[in-house]
Amino acid sequence: MLVALGGNAIQRAQDHGTWAEAVRQMRRTTSALADVTVPGRELVITHGNGPQVGSLLREAELGAGEIPVPPLHVVGAETEGQLGYLIAQELGSALRSQRVDRSVLPIVSRVEVSPRDPAFRTPSKPVGRFYPAGEALSLRRRLGWTMREDVRRGGWRRLVASPRPLRWLEGDAVREVLEAGFGERFVFVVTGGGGIPVVRRRGRWEGVDAVIDKDRAAALVGRQLEMDTLAIITDVPGAALDYKSSHPRWLGRVGLEELTQYWKRGEFAEGSMGPKVEAGIRFLRDGGRVFLITDIPSLPEALAGRAGTRVEVSAPPTPRGTRRLGRTLPGSPGRRRLK
Amino acid sequence: MLVALGGNAIQRAQDHGTWAEAVRQMRRTTSALADVTVPGRELVITHGNGPQVGSLLREAELGAGEIPVPPLHVVGAETEGQLGYLIAQELGSALRSQRVDRSVLPIVSRVEVSPRDPAFRTPSKPVGRFYPAGEALSLRRRLGWTMREDVRRGGWRRLVASPRPLRWLEGDAVREVLEAGFGERFVFVVTGGGGIPVVRRRGRWEGVDAVIDKDRAAALVGRQLEMDTLAIITDVPGAALDYKSSHPRWLGRVGLEELTQYWKRGEFAEGSMGPKVEAGIRFLRDGGRVFLITDIPSLPEALAGRAGTRVEVSAPPTPRGTRRLGRTLPGSPGRRRLK
Repeated sequence: MLVALGGNAIQRAQDHGTWAEAVRQMRRTTSALADVTVPGRELVITHGNGPQVGSLLREAELGAGEIPVPPLHVVGAETEGQLGYLIAQELGSALRSQRVDRSVLPIVSRVEVSPRDPAFRTPSKPVGRFYPAGEALSLRRRLGWTMREDVRRGGWRRLVASPRPLRWLEGDAVREVLEAGFGERFVFVVTGGGGIPVVRRRGRWEGVDAVIDKDRAAALVGRQLEMDTLAIITDVPGAALDYKSSHPRWLGRVGLEELTQYWKRGEFAEGSMGPKVEAGIRFLRDGGRVFLITDIPSLPEALAGRAGTRVEVSAPPTPRGTRRLGRTLPGSPGRRRLK
Repeated sequence: MLVALGGNAIQRAQDHGTWAEAVRQMRRTTSALADVTVPGRELVITHGNGPQVGSLLREAELGAGEIPVPPLHVVGAETEGQLGYLIAQELGSALRSQRVDRSVLPIVSRVEVSPRDPAFRTPSKPVGRFYPAGEALSLRRRLGWTMREDVRRGGWRRLVASPRPLRWLEGDAVREVLEAGFGERFVFVVTGGGGIPVVRRRGRWEGVDAVIDKDRAAALVGRQLEMDTLAIITDVPGAALDYKSSHPRWLGRVGLEELTQYWKRGEFAEGSMGPKVEAGIRFLRDGGRVFLITDIPSLPEALAGRAGTRVEVSAPPTPRGTRRLGRTLPGSPGRRRLK
């Protein structure tokens, strides 16, 4: 099972961004995760990093007179360290208290994007804080940033490109370890914040200032690791039709074709439920079997088919290679049947 | 082989701390590392983080009015992300250009220390920047920091505890992966900056504001992974006697007992060559076979026995368990004879 933790799993809207708050919130999250870490089920975790990147960018801004400002991709790497550590601490403690012998391994993860991705021509992803108009225009002039006014929230924000993730660079390695029989021994934490975006130039890897959508990255991880189940954790109990109306209709069990129709007709908000549903559709079309959207308290029930939005395909449209067949090393347990 | 990269491998004294400088310097370092990544030799990397922690702490200080200041252990985790990323980028590129098919996997690493370590009563490790006296005394009063004046460099610095590392928490997992036959497939990057220091309290892991000496952590990693060779990379070609005199005597090949005598009589500077030599002695006493101190350009020659300070023990005083015997899974290559 691949679990994608949204920002709410780490920091609540009312929080101030202290470490103590993050620990408290992650403790709630990992307690539920430990409950569902049962024999026969693999657990791989991916997560967002929006508020944490925002804080580090702001610190870098305020320190700019003294300390060279790091590129955005470096700040992304720093949040992978920070949040990988947080998840390892709290999930490690929770697993231990339930006597589950699994090591949490946060992997600093890079994701390849194309330097010719059209997203680089039309930056669309807001990062960092809100600026007053004068400062925003000055940043545009001095640093070439793309700035957009958010009238509703009263300020300007920097927009960066959100290119399509092509390949998670550490993915083959993690897959090989899982295939060697470690699925019930390790919990990998990967592609935090969507992964650090890199391009290949003249035979070398170079970081780029962009943000990869974390749900798209989750779909990629699901494909590269050939996961059976993708559970996207958010702060609402599932996806809904007419969400903004006075009568939202929560989706429970739904077919892949039906969900795809809803998605195509624009039922799910961009930058919110839209990319989650899109990631689920992609995951299932690429060979996944179960896709869930749920909040953290409902995760155990959602896995049992009694909560959340759930899409299940009995026979994946694209058969998965050796992995579903339980490819194993001689002498190791037949783990590639794990969920 | 376990390679411990000193600060100079990442940032030179004359650098300003920009990312471009760090990339350039790491490129030099990883080019030499790729040269020695040959069949039959495992490579595991650990590294320091002093200047990077200093920069992030300073940014946090300057942003303190707006953004909650993160604890020191969280900043340590951030540098593991930052530098793990840097090493993965550059070593990955260098290995690729030499057609070596190994994945670089940076692991966010925690190291257990004892809450009763006497080091917590006498903080000794300087972190962060220099403060003028007034500010230093105010920080002591307001935050309870231990501050010490450095007369030579003209300022006050914060001192934190440097407790003894007891256990690298992710070490068993990494060892299991190496033992499953992945020694020539992966390059693990571990315990950056000495590892994130954590203690166990009431059954949970908690981070503590301390800095683990990176050379001591390297010795611990060497023991936990049962590495054959520890190479400490620094900015001088080896250890020397009478180092501060006009006639330093560089040590080439030296016996373990002889080196131990030099170390005991205080030939090696505290906070500089001293902890490196101490780590090497510990590594060899714990079962390692070869210990090297070298600069990066001389690494290939040092491995061949023609440069650097080299201590080699033919039969380790403490025999290593199953590892030296080439414990393998059925069907996997007999890799635990790797160096």
